[in-house]
Amino acid sequence: MAGSPRRAASRRLQLPLLCLLFQGATTILFAIFVRYNHETDAALWHWGNHSNANNEFYFRYPSFQDVHAMVFVGFGFLMVFLQRYGFSSVGFTFLLAAFALQWSTLVQGFLHSFYSGHIHIGIESMINADFCAGAVLISFGAILGKTGPPQLLLMTLLEVALFGINEFVLLNLLGVRDAGGSMTIHTFGAYFGLFLSRVLYRPQLEKSKHRQSSIYHSDLFAMIGTIFLWIFWPSFNSAPTSLGDTQHRTALNTYYSLTASTLSTFALSALVSGDGRLDMVHIQNAALAGGVVVGTSGEMMLTPFGALAAGFLAGTVSTLGYKFLTPILESKFKIQDTCGIHNLHGMPGVLGALLGVLVAGLSTHDAYGDGLESVFPLIAKGQRSATSQAIHQLFGLFVTLVLATVGGSLGGE
Amino acid sequence: MAGSPRRAASRRLQLPLLCLLFQGATTILFAIFVRYNHETDAALWHWGNHSNANNEFYFRYPSFQDVHAMVFVGFGFLMVFLQRYGFSSVGFTFLLAAFALQWSTLVQGFLHSFYSGHIHIGIESMINADFCAGAVLISFGAILGKTGPPQLLLMTLLEVALFGINEFVLLNLLGVRDAGGSMTIHTFGAYFGLFLSRVLYRPQLEKSKHRQSSIYHSDLFAMIGTIFLWIFWPSFNSAPTSLGDTQHRTALNTYYSLTASTLSTFALSALVSGDGRLDMVHIQNAALAGGVVVGTSGEMMLTPFGALAAGFLAGTVSTLGYKFLTPILESKFKIQDTCGIHNLHGMPGVLGALLGVLVAGLSTHDAYGDGLESVFPLIAKGQRSATSQAIHQLFGLFVTLVLATVGGSLGGE
Amino acid sequence: MAGSPRRAASRRLQLPLLCLLFQGATTILFAIFVRYNHETDAALWHWGNHSNANNEFYFRYPSFQDVHAMVFVGFGFLMVFLQRYGFSSVGFTFLLAAFALQWSTLVQGFLHSFYSGHIHIGIESMINADFCAGAVLISFGAILGKTGPPQLLLMTLLEVALFGINEFVLLNLLGVRDAGGSMTIHTFGAYFGLFLSRVLYRPQLEKSKHRQSSIYHSDLFAMIGTIFLWIFWPSFNSAPTSLGDTQHRTALNTYYSLTASTLSTFALSALVSGDGRLDMVHIQNAALAGGVVVGTSGEMMLTPFGALAAGFLAGTVSTLGYKFLTPILESKFKIQDTCGIHNLHGMPGVLGALLGVLVAGLSTHDAYGDGLESVFPLIAKGQRSATSQAIHQLFGLFVTLVLATVGGSLGGE
Repeated sequence: MAGSPRRAASRRLQLPLLCLLFQGATTILFAIFVRYNHETDAALWHWGNHSNANNEFYFRYPSFQDVHAMVFVGFGFLMVFLQRYGFSSVGFTFLLAAFALQWSTLVQGFLHSFYSGHIHIGIESMINADFCAGAVLISFGAILGKTGPPQLLLMTLLEVALFGINEFVLLNLLGVRDAGGSMTIHTFGAYFGLFLSRVLYRPQLEKSKHRQSSIYHSDLFAMIGTIFLWIFWPSFNSAPTSLGDTQHRTALNTYYSLTASTLSTFALSALVSGDGRLDMVHIQNAALAGGVVVGTSGEMMLTPFGALAAGFLAGTVSTLGYKFLTPILESKFKIQDTCGIHNLHGMPGVLGALLGVLVAGLSTHDAYGDGLESVFPLIAKGQRSATSQAIHQLFGLFVTLVLATVGGSLGGE
Repeated sequence: MAGSPRRAASRRLQLPLLCLLFQGATTILFAIFVRYNHETDAALWHWGNHSNANNEFYFRYPSFQDVHAMVFVGFGFLMVFLQRYGFSSVGFTFLLAAFALQWSTLVQGFLHSFYSGHIHIGIESMINADFCAGAVLISFGAILGKTGPPQLLLMTLLEVALFGINEFVLLNLLGVRDAGGSMTIHTFGAYFGLFLSRVLYRPQLEKSKHRQSSIYHSDLFAMIGTIFLWIFWPSFNSAPTSLGDTQHRTALNTYYSLTASTLSTFALSALVSGDGRLDMVHIQNAALAGGVVVGTSGEMMLTPFGALAAGFLAGTVSTLGYKFLTPILESKFKIQDTCGIHNLHGMPGVLGALLGVLVAGLSTHDAYGDGLESVFPLIAKGQRSATSQAIHQLFGLFVTLVLATVGGSLGGE
Repeated sequence: MAGSPRRAASRRLQLPLLCLLFQGATTILFAIFVRYNHETDAALWHWGNHSNANNEFYFRYPSFQDVHAMVFVGFGFLMVFLQRYGFSSVGFTFLLAAFALQWSTLVQGFLHSFYSGHIHIGIESMINADFCAGAVLISFGAILGKTGPPQLLLMTLLEVALFGINEFVLLNLLGVRDAGGSMTIHTFGAYFGLFLSRVLYRPQLEKSKHRQSSIYHSDLFAMIGTIFLWIFWPSFNSAPTSLGDTQHRTALNTYYSLTASTLSTFALSALVSGDGRLDMVHIQNAALAGGVVVGTSGEMMLTPFGALAAGFLAGTVSTLGYKFLTPILESKFKIQDTCGIHNLHGMPGVLGALLGVLVAGLSTHDAYGDGLESVFPLIAKGQRSATSQAIHQLFGLFVTLVLATVGGSLGGE
């Protein structure tokens, strides 16, 4: 009889102890391995006698802050409120994201900036850590309300590690281009979460129960998330690109792609409903698909027309997904996609990867001139043809899907 | 008898078909006409061998993002929630703004950056498109709840075209200065909307009905919009100015003007109420009038004192307008100004234009030194006297008022 | 009998007349004393023939806008909604902050940029004015609901003046380093507010009454404030530092410190509650303590490990403060800390000052190289040893505590 309260007490201690354990471990690992890089270390920076105007920090910081705002305000508010899991969920996404930032700094640091026995950090590591936290929050959009915080923390541990490995394989080993993360962030995050969700399938989960109360204000809060994502997505896709025309072009392509996905979402949402009325869930999500779909090709010479066409397609596919595919995923495949991440991140992410295959395969020296070096360095150096780059891009999508589905399935066990 | 459901069905199809038609048309026009400019095209940029530090993109992008946030968060939340037209209105402003961004890229592109048979786009076209979307949202603040989404889309088509023409006449033909758009954005948007509203006059529209429920949380949402507009207005006015001291000075003038309009709004709001209590509608709107009133003169040598005095005056006039003028507009002129745009954008916009006339007329070579070239290039080149510039500014206001009122009246037919 | 309505009328006129008086006085003082500086004056800037790329404005403006957003969205929403004093409080913090921006421009201008008989303003004066407005809003977090708006305006008058004097003594006379304001903003603002609160002690103030209604949505609004503060704090601490590696390092340290304070807050909040549930007030506040605690040392060579350890400690102390210290402050010392500013700003501010003493004392030429000049100019010039700098830092904390407590006690009379 004493067992039950004792077990309850130990369950109560799980979350705080896990937080303390994880924070303790990352603090020790930071002490051993993590150092300022040449731009953040006082002695290293001034030794080279750099001028302030050449400090990459100033070219990247505004984009970084927009990404940071998107991840925390956008994903936090949109995903959580959408299905009305209420306040504690906002709190937990906050915790998971904060842990993901630290842990991915270590994982990505070992893979990307480890030399002389240390990890070196600066603005790039902050942007990359935020990207990883974004993928984690996407995944949890599929499993909200199905498992407890200690389990979520453990899954974050796994997902961040796999995210780092997948990104390393794609960008460093395969020479794949994926600045805005159609593959590494959206496809990976979505399918990891969906396969997690499959393992955690709970037939008794009633969606309707969560929808009954306070829908009006929840929708407004979700709309704050939507608008934040919409306005900052150009910064998200362009944050890690080469400086100059590439970053500028990426922001421009994303901006116009989003306007087109917004129009196609309104059109399709009204068409597929029986009575011509708009479904606010479509507006809050599918309107953003234009940002996801140019994640890979946004830095390429997609052309302004290409950006509009891509956005239009993404909004259409995403809205149709909400209407027709999500119910099938649950009934046939036992995948309960709580926030519809398959429609906002999964399908538009795969589409974006395929669009990247196409645009990379069509790239020519004429179209890029000397700018080819910034976008496709391997083609510029003559180590790869455009067709070969396209094939590598396609293989990168395949690797991402394998790692995400296997990882998600394992993570749920 | 079969006619009625058929008509209902055709009405249901109006919005989606219009969205698809408009998106299809802009996509085709983009394919034919729109190209990257020299800063966003990989081949063009690298051909000139520019360094990153000289890329204008990096000087303008942070301001652009603030403008983008203002237009979507600020105007969206403030205008809609103010009169509690609820969620669907937020959705529609989102749709209208997205369409306005595409369509104004085409209209403004033909007028401003059309050469070699193409429109060339980059960060400036994104800023200008956002400015135009801002004017559209201002106008719809006067007609919310009075007409359906298909009509709103058609009016956007008209207003964007007229906005582009008015801006072209003022800036390019008349040589008028109006960086922050006191005339081109606020005066134009407000009077276009007010004259639309007059044509759409609905005597049975009961304002009180919309105010009864959920006022507390609606006011908080509106306050989010107000604060976003307040903090980002310095970026709005300075986004399109010359780089260097001009942009810096514009942000500074706007910042201080807003502090003064805030104090005068609180003072006047308490004075004009019978019982000393503040009216939240005044705070949410009139406090922002300081941003509107320095839209033209913010880039000029207004002096810090001038910024405070202008803000003080604008807050005063705007608050008095809510109290005394808005009821008269409705009862005598049948103009139902749903969100009070005449007080926030109309009168402060006209005041801002007149302040621009004054400050331009007082400009001297001594006060501006070599900086005269950036602010008044025609005076610097000796093609115009300060007095002549002032007269041109005044004529610009006249043109704006004519185009806005005629356009608004036609738009409502 | 006629006296009572007359007195009521005069009370109604207090706020508007005070607003008009203050606005009139600052406008006259601006006219006499305030001028554009060499970066905002058209003639002065172009005279020197500066290039745009060297314009400090472009390095500082993005950080400035984040600070501006933090002060108005963050402090406004977080502090007010936390204890549910409702809409009018948001309005008043808006008024107080707007007045503080003008008045602190004058006070700080006389102390810092007064030459040739004038105060010279630009981006630095906007950042400094926002910092001062932040301190004012922190203080009012302790006295919300205890006194009327006219009294709050008078206290702002006093606090802004003392804030300027304290900052001048620390930074200019004592050569203390405090970029992110652990001492000048957080410690000063918190203890000024707490001693004000003591004088305004109202035993009948029932906290519980304010908590009963609409907690769910109020918590969501407060969470918007929390997330804004969390994402923009790296900009807050780095806004006034030297350009280059120092600003970059400060943002990095703050970013990681906040992740650690978030994890320790979740751990401690669950541990100290009887039933393992999280207290949302802890999450909304203590998670931010990591930003406060590196306010002084963030620009120093704190190391990434140091940032995590500091954040961890701050989150722990802050959460324990809410649980154990706040009730004692009220019962034993008659300090009703309405929003818990002692836990978010007071203790973490003092901790941050002490951490600054430690890190300054440990600074060596080896660790900073030529970068020592940017962080500790007096040590670099050989005018001071590291130990002497540490002692000056400690004395700076002492001065801040004395000025804040004496000022707060006087302000309440």
